[in-house]
Order: sequence, then structure tokens, then C-alpha cells
Amino acid sequence: MKKNYSSKSPIGVFDSGIGGLTVAKSLFEILPNENIIYLGDTARLPYGTKSKETVTKYSIEITKFLLNKNVKMVVVACNTASSVALQYLKKLTDVPVIGVIRPGAKAAVSKTNNYKIGVIGTLGTVHSFAYKTQIHKIDRDINVFSKACSLFVQLAEDGWTDNKIAEMVAKEYLTEFKSHDIDTLILGCTHYPILKKTISKVVGKKIHLIDSGEETAKEVKRILEYKDLLNKQKKAGRHKFFVTDFQKKFKEISERFLGQPIYDVRKVRLES
Amino acid sequence: MKKNYSSKSPIGVFDSGIGGLTVAKSLFEILPNENIIYLGDTARLPYGTKSKETVTKYSIEITKFLLNKNVKMVVVACNTASSVALQYLKKLTDVPVIGVIRPGAKAAVSKTNNYKIGVIGTLGTVHSFAYKTQIHKIDRDINVFSKACSLFVQLAEDGWTDNKIAEMVAKEYLTEFKSHDIDTLILGCTHYPILKKTISKVVGKKIHLIDSGEETAKEVKRILEYKDLLNKQKKAGRHKFFVTDFQKKFKEISERFLGQPIYDVRKVRLES
Repeated sequence: MKKNYSSKSPIGVFDSGIGGLTVAKSLFEILPNENIIYLGDTARLPYGTKSKETVTKYSIEITKFLLNKNVKMVVVACNTASSVALQYLKKLTDVPVIGVIRPGAKAAVSKTNNYKIGVIGTLGTVHSFAYKTQIHKIDRDINVFSKACSLFVQLAEDGWTDNKIAEMVAKEYLTEFKSHDIDTLILGCTHYPILKKTISKVVGKKIHLIDSGEETAKEVKRILEYKDLLNKQKKAGRHKFFVTDFQKKFKEISERFLGQPIYDVRKVRLES
Repeated sequence: MKKNYSSKSPIGVFDSGIGGLTVAKSLFEILPNENIIYLGDTARLPYGTKSKETVTKYSIEITKFLLNKNVKMVVVACNTASSVALQYLKKLTDVPVIGVIRPGAKAAVSKTNNYKIGVIGTLGTVHSFAYKTQIHKIDRDINVFSKACSLFVQLAEDGWTDNKIAEMVAKEYLTEFKSHDIDTLILGCTHYPILKKTISKVVGKKIHLIDSGEETAKEVKRILEYKDLLNKQKKAGRHKFFVTDFQKKFKEISERFLGQPIYDVRKVRLES
């Protein structure tokens, strides 16, 4: 596609649903003057249990939608899509396309002292070995231990984030990391930062928790600076939200994930 | 569509994914000589959180797929789709189309002695008031208490069905039914029969649990008898399975839901 973007153009962000709003939240904080377009594929979520081919197909459709809005960058704010589809999305355009895996992996490698990193995510992310692969690209000597924590997504969406049940579920999933003696744990699903407090309580406060979304927002800033594409406007950036379906409880859940209410959400139909 | 089916034709069954396999299981038991085609829309599950319009659109696409296979009956083995889409699906064809709501509601009404019935299901089913409406069509004097139990689906899929966590989650959701003094509880989601033991333990053994899927299978038999469409063949029926995506862990989960392994699953693309 030809170049029709400038520093004033928006950043495009997408996720299978609302989880990516935790990434958007970090972007809003780190880059308050940027215009941002967010698309949540709420009609087809979740991606975590779907095949590589299906997730790639959906991600391509969404990236094309964002490119048609003349974005200057595409942020894949979804661990599953980042794990399996990123390479195909990069071929669609010359604007930078980044996922959440590499920034998360980089941050974890720089934090660990004992070369033992844990990764938690959906079944899709864990089975793809995306974090392990990225970590080993930086340092082959690091031991990586992964675990799918399927129930965390529903707990986060239901707001059961720091009750007794959340703690028991976290214990069931995370206790094995203690025997692995990790010192760093990657929250490899955009829903998981919502459960950060409980996760930290269970694994122990000494373990560094890496929020891939937060690390991605920092990386977005670095890339825009490097490419001289930072928006220099003094006013606050505009934020637009699109969904593929008006999901039940969207307003309530999105507010919890974004930390602020969303007033303007439009429903769109994606072209395949 | 014109009539091109006979008693030898298969019964078409669909669900958003694998939950409907508990309905298929009841159909296999009650109608062992029937040929059955099952479609799970695994690429687009879950339906429980999606809008009425989206669920209806998907259900129409699937029903057309089944009708093209010349089914003699369509069973909507999904509570969400039964709640919102059934009336539209009936317009597509002259073969009988039945959902799981009415059979479940009818069975509950015939079981209750104190006129107090509880209903549990997904957010979509509970918000649609489909069970309440059906129950009140039969008897307006019955009190109906509904509750969405979002975490049950993931618990059933992960096989966490009778551990301590399942029990705590069930207590959190179901304790309020005690104060309502119900004597009958409808399992208004096809995943929930997998958790029957734990649910019964929490609400107490005196409460009748209604498995909508099982009641639906009995209703299918009654309708086929009435319409003289029962398959008279002596050999066991053929069972074919279609999915819209090869979902992760499909084999493991489907075996738990169906009670037997599935050998032949084909992936199909639905036309909109």
C-alpha cells in the first residue's frame, strides 16, 4: 500500500476484544498526544482457542481496516495474534507493525538475574512458544517455563480479580513456578494485568511481573521517535473505538480495563 | 426450501462449539438408529456474550448449511441461539426446527411442586428471559429466578468439574437460590451438565436438576414419531461432525462432553 500517513496520523491498535484495552491504557499514558484508533473484534473473540490459520485471517482483515484509516503504525494488542500472525501482517504495509511478544520478552530478559523466566497466557500463546522463541533469540541460555491459565480471562471480565476464588485459581496455576525458581514472570495475555495484585500475592513479591502491554507502549514511543513520527500537537490525542459486535457488558468491562469510560464506540463490518 | 428429506435423512444439530455435544450425547442414547450431523461453530464461539443480531446471523448460516445436507429436522443445541434466533430459523424451512429452551421449560414446570424454578445460563440466555417467557406461557403463577454463571463454561472445558475451585465458584453463584426456596433448577447452558455433580452438591440433593439437552432429545423423538419420520433402520446411526475451526484441545474436550471419542471431524466454511 502507498504511503499516505504522517506524524499527525493515528496509531491503529487491535485485539480480539477488550483485553487490548490494557495496552491502549498504557499507550494513552505514555503517549497522551497521539490520536489512537482501537478495534476490538468482539464478534469473533476469543482468539486464544482458535487455529493459527483462523487467527491470521482475522488479523489480516483488521489490519487492512486500520490501514484504510491511514494509520502510521499498527499495534497488535493481542498476544495470540502477535504470536501467530505478525509476520503476515508486516507484509501488508510499510508502516511499522508491532506485537506485544517481543517487547515483553525483551523486558523480561533485561530483568532476570537467574536466567529463569515464567510465561503465562492463553492456550494459543503458550502452544505457539512465541515468548520462548523471542527470549531465546536474545539469549539462548535462559530457561523458559510456560503455563496456560484459561480461567484468568473470565475472572478478569467478571471482575473477580482479588477475591478468594481468584486467589485459589491463581494458586492452582502458578504454584509450579515456585519449584522452577523463576525470578521474572511475563503476563502474556492482555487480560492478566487486571489480576496483577492476586498473581503477585501468589507467586511472591520478589518476582518481577512483566506487563507486555506496558512494555509495548514504551516500544511504540521509541519507534515513533526513531522514525520521526511522534505527533507534536499540544492538545490531547483523540481516541476512537470500533467493535465488530456490541458485546454484552462492553461498557462495564471496558471501563475496568481502560480505567476510564468509553463514550464513542462504533460497530463495523470487516471485509474478508 | 422444497421437501427433499425422508425418514432416512439425518437429524441436523448445531451449537456455537462443543457444548451442544451434551445434547448430541442424549440424542445418541435416546435415538441410537438415527443418522446425525453435528456442526460446531468453533471459529466464532462463544455465542453467550454476543448480540442478538450476530447470533441470529450465524444461526441462519448454519441452518442453511444443514438444510443443504437434506436434514429432516434441525436441533438448535445451543441455549443462546435457541433464545434469540429460533423464530427466524423456523421461517427458513418446513422441516421441524426445535431449540433447547421449550423442552427444558416444559420439564421444569412438570417437576416443580412449589412453583419456584431457578434458571442458570450464559449472560445471553439470562438476559433474553427466554426460559422465563416459556415457563410463563405454560403457567403464569410460577416464580422464576435467573442467574448467569459465566465461569462454568471454562471450568467444564478445563475439566475442573468436581474440585474445590468448582465447588467454591458454584457456591458463589448458587447460594442465593437457597433464599428463593426453589425446588427445580434448569441447567440452561449445554456445558453445565458436565458440572451436574458439583451443582447438585451445592444446591442440595432435594432440588430437581433439569438437563435441557436431555429433555430436548426426548422431544425430538416425540416429534419424529408424530411426523412418522423415525428412522426404522436396525443398524446404528451414522454420526458426522463438522466444525468451522479446528479448535485447540477439541479432541480432549469433545470426548469429555460426548462420552466417546470423535474420529471423523471435518472443517467447513459457512456462506453468509
